[in-house]
Amino acid sequence: MFSKIRELLIGKTLKTEELAGEKLNVFWGLPILSSDAVSSVAYAGEEILYVLIGVLGLLAYKYMFYAALCVVILLIILVLSYRQTIDSYPCGGGSYIVAKDNLGVIPGLTAGASLTVDYVLTVAVSISAGTAAITSAMPSLLNHKVAIALIMLLLLTIGNLRGVKESSKLFGVPTYLFIVSCVVLILTGIIRHFIFGYSPVPMYQIPKQIGDITLFLFLRAFASGCTALSGVEAVSNGIPNFKEPSQKNAKAVLALLACLVLFIFGGLSFLATIYHPLPDMNVTVFAQIAQQVFGKGIMFYIIQITTAFVLVMAANTAYAGLPLLLSLMGQDGYVPRQFSQRGKRLSFSNGIILLAVAAGLLIIVFKGDTHLLLPLYAVGVFLSFTLSQVGMFLRWERSRTTGWKHKAFINGLGAIVTFITVILIGITKFSKGAWLVFIIIPLLVYFMVKIKNHYNHVVEQIKLSNYQRPNVGMKTNNDQHVIILLGTLNKSFLKSLNCANSLSQNVVAFHVSIDPEVTEKLKRKWKEYNPGIPLIIEHSAYRDVLGPLIDFIESEDRASKHGETVTVVLSQFVITKWWHNMLHNQTGYFIKSMLYKNRNVAVLTVPYIIKE
Amino acid sequence: MFSKIRELLIGKTLKTEELAGEKLNVFWGLPILSSDAVSSVAYAGEEILYVLIGVLGLLAYKYMFYAALCVVILLIILVLSYRQTIDSYPCGGGSYIVAKDNLGVIPGLTAGASLTVDYVLTVAVSISAGTAAITSAMPSLLNHKVAIALIMLLLLTIGNLRGVKESSKLFGVPTYLFIVSCVVLILTGIIRHFIFGYSPVPMYQIPKQIGDITLFLFLRAFASGCTALSGVEAVSNGIPNFKEPSQKNAKAVLALLACLVLFIFGGLSFLATIYHPLPDMNVTVFAQIAQQVFGKGIMFYIIQITTAFVLVMAANTAYAGLPLLLSLMGQDGYVPRQFSQRGKRLSFSNGIILLAVAAGLLIIVFKGDTHLLLPLYAVGVFLSFTLSQVGMFLRWERSRTTGWKHKAFINGLGAIVTFITVILIGITKFSKGAWLVFIIIPLLVYFMVKIKNHYNHVVEQIKLSNYQRPNVGMKTNNDQHVIILLGTLNKSFLKSLNCANSLSQNVVAFHVSIDPEVTEKLKRKWKEYNPGIPLIIEHSAYRDVLGPLIDFIESEDRASKHGETVTVVLSQFVITKWWHNMLHNQTGYFIKSMLYKNRNVAVLTVPYIIKE
Repeated sequence: MFSKIRELLIGKTLKTEELAGEKLNVFWGLPILSSDAVSSVAYAGEEILYVLIGVLGLLAYKYMFYAALCVVILLIILVLSYRQTIDSYPCGGGSYIVAKDNLGVIPGLTAGASLTVDYVLTVAVSISAGTAAITSAMPSLLNHKVAIALIMLLLLTIGNLRGVKESSKLFGVPTYLFIVSCVVLILTGIIRHFIFGYSPVPMYQIPKQIGDITLFLFLRAFASGCTALSGVEAVSNGIPNFKEPSQKNAKAVLALLACLVLFIFGGLSFLATIYHPLPDMNVTVFAQIAQQVFGKGIMFYIIQITTAFVLVMAANTAYAGLPLLLSLMGQDGYVPRQFSQRGKRLSFSNGIILLAVAAGLLIIVFKGDTHLLLPLYAVGVFLSFTLSQVGMFLRWERSRTTGWKHKAFINGLGAIVTFITVILIGITKFSKGAWLVFIIIPLLVYFMVKIKNHYNHVVEQIKLSNYQRPNVGMKTNNDQHVIILLGTLNKSFLKSLNCANSLSQNVVAFHVSIDPEVTEKLKRKWKEYNPGIPLIIEHSAYRDVLGPLIDFIESEDRASKHGETVTVVLSQFVITKWWHNMLHNQTGYFIKSMLYKNRNVAVLTVPYIIKE
Repeated sequence: MFSKIRELLIGKTLKTEELAGEKLNVFWGLPILSSDAVSSVAYAGEEILYVLIGVLGLLAYKYMFYAALCVVILLIILVLSYRQTIDSYPCGGGSYIVAKDNLGVIPGLTAGASLTVDYVLTVAVSISAGTAAITSAMPSLLNHKVAIALIMLLLLTIGNLRGVKESSKLFGVPTYLFIVSCVVLILTGIIRHFIFGYSPVPMYQIPKQIGDITLFLFLRAFASGCTALSGVEAVSNGIPNFKEPSQKNAKAVLALLACLVLFIFGGLSFLATIYHPLPDMNVTVFAQIAQQVFGKGIMFYIIQITTAFVLVMAANTAYAGLPLLLSLMGQDGYVPRQFSQRGKRLSFSNGIILLAVAAGLLIIVFKGDTHLLLPLYAVGVFLSFTLSQVGMFLRWERSRTTGWKHKAFINGLGAIVTFITVILIGITKFSKGAWLVFIIIPLLVYFMVKIKNHYNHVVEQIKLSNYQRPNVGMKTNNDQHVIILLGTLNKSFLKSLNCANSLSQNVVAFHVSIDPEVTEKLKRKWKEYNPGIPLIIEHSAYRDVLGPLIDFIESEDRASKHGETVTVVLSQFVITKWWHNMLHNQTGYFIKSMLYKNRNVAVLTVPYIIKE
């Protein structure tokens, strides 16, 4: 039943050999990996304006444009730096790998933890912004923001569980539609104003200027705009997702991404200086511009719909990135190894599910409000950028291959710029929520180290040397302690007894007495049947089978030779109809799970099949 | 952790021997068992009026009083009948037992199913009505009805899980307070009107009379009032809960209960004829009367609070009744046997939890609205009354002890009256929701029969005759098939191998290859180490361990002698810190639970303790 529903939702299980077919070319790689950066125009501009407008009034639009230009310049520096990373790390050069490789474990884990936090935030922010695009077009849905966001999250998760390639085709189309819509919007906006002389009336009253621009204010605005840049990491981390030649493809996608963001983010910021949208209304800034350029007609709705879609696709970037990152860290043993296993559809399903749950919680806690979520965002991504660039710088410095100085300069510049940015973001947003990130990242690093220690510990303890030989033949354990749990004297018990007898010549039956009447009856039957092994009866005042059993085992354990395993034999009914399980006491399951806890007790479960 | 929270909520685990101390005397038995009947004045009168007022206008109050009198007369007949039941069934004479005893299994199960449905409804209705009492006093809470109801349900459930006696003392006080408040209300209302000549102004405009009284209308009103009578069953079903002499105590409680209902229900219906409350407002009819008699002062709030409490106590009657009923049916094998086991605090905790969950669902689905819930109510209880009375009638008829004619007459009268009532309720409420009950009761009976069949079936199959003897000694199973699952060649595997070798001389290691690299490494290590048993490697295209293992087992199974058990040996890490479990693949657990499904496979789990 459950597996049928799963098949319907995520498709048929794929063979491991089908993995190669699931990879991306440039045409499909671009939308799936650029949507994060491209879509950020839907909120990054608004965040810049949100910081400036209260103080600067009309003047805010000018400085918004400047701040946006700074963000774009930062993007170009990053792209140049990351092209070098892609060249050096053909198997995926995320910050985690680069930092671990060149700076050591703790910087690597810091980068990994930062990215983890930011991927989760990418999903929460993008989906919340996507919901805002929908409610801008349909204000009647304003009360159902969280529900809409969670539904989108669910659909996205299912799409990703289906696998990389299918989801990219499924998800790539709307990104292209959005890009085209934006280009049309920018061109129409500019042409209407400059050629046809249309001078728009602002939709809302712009507040009066109450102060002048200060460096801090401008830097706050810039820091808010930096939320646009998390997508870069995804490209270089995702090299293994590309078709061969994967490095060349990844670099092409990165370059195209930069051009797109340059044109769309720059163009829209320029439009804002003409059309004067006002942030923090129920209608997004982006929607206000679209409404003024096109009127509230079909084009307005197309813009809103494609915006919503592309924001969901941006969340999808994180779905491509985080599971891959976790699988790398899982292989190294810093996160549970289950994250390295591919699911039924060859996607890293555990990572996908973790991402969905974490983002869903953020959406619920922050009620899907982007203004509340954004201050937490971008700290992590710029921290990981910095670590990655410093790592690349040291790499060139150490290798001294031809042209290393030029390359070291580019990565060094990247390192300095991103380091300044992380300081800026940290300071300007600390009190608005970024402090939380500064707590979570060290905590994650701490746990990653603990996990690695545990794995090392286990490997050490179970390592087998050739001097330790198995016991051969059956005679060695003739006298090991075997306890067979007795409820009722029936065929199922007889079968268990036969198994127990074949294990050892030291078998005892153990009965826990809860109801004296039942026990008396059992004693009589036992005497009559006489199975040839001792019967031990313990009274349980608290109607609990497990306690007396464990007491007994521990006494046996002490009695037995040091370190020897005690075996408990349990009978289990095997029933054809699932609901019949509800009719039988599941004490057996419970006993088993408790016996495993820190005890040297082997459990033999003997099935008895009840036919229908 | 979990067990500490449980201890805090429901108290320390009690010994079975402490059971005797948990029983009720008359003084505490009265409130815990009468609250259902007594509290129904809070809604039964309103329901009668609700039916009449739209048609009869002012005249409705007169006929409401008559309908209430009919309900009280019915109650007296029931009490007389049930006194005889209590005499005949010292160990608890619920309808289930009486009907099963005298009429056969199916009537017994019908009574049992009817009562189950009605106990659940008692809880849902009473708690909803309790919420209405609170919101009548504090209209600002009207929007949080469902949440308030669920919180009350939760508290009640915890109280009951703590055990019978403690909950009765905890819960008995408010019932007495309510009774006193009602007496004061009735006396004050009568004295103010008749002695001080206070003539009240109705709080709301009474609708005009648009029709005349008809028999059907009156019967509908009477049927609505019958919801008050479910508590009677609880007393005779709950005899084992009483202190010795339990029958005498139960009869005393039943008589006192009748007097209380007679006085309070009668008195309040009489007050309604003077004070003219209007049903279906945000303020309950009962609250309107209290407000007019006392004004909106301290006494009004006391009435509302005690009403809310006593309604919760009425729900508590069902908590005393249903778990006991289910434990009886569980002993007979008609419901899962787990309902017959006493929990940590000697209460039948499974029944309590089932009741809480079912009632909670009803409250959520019907949004805590008593007008929606009440039409479903009372069908079941009168059906069970009828079956019980018919059973008693036949019992006298068959026994013909001294005075049997007189006794048979009383029970016969009860049978006729309750049968007529069940027909009335069924007809007048069918379209308003009672149809649902007519579907659910037969369904429950069907499942009960199925469950009993299953238990019989199992007993038949596992019954052991003295001719079937256990195998003695260890030599018999030397060649049984033992499969040891191999992941990595380590100390944990070595330990499992030693166990497997002690089981049989026919041990094979089985490895499922997911990653070819890992498998190659394993092969090399195996060759080097040479453990002396064959290694079988299966490739799994779908990265799934279970499928190939089951295929292999089934091939082994076919190969082995018919019916012989194949044993699978699994290694399991035993880890001291619970969170470390998340770091290891739980494939073992999964494999175990799947292997048990309909296969003749014994599973031996060998622990390997990882020290910290």
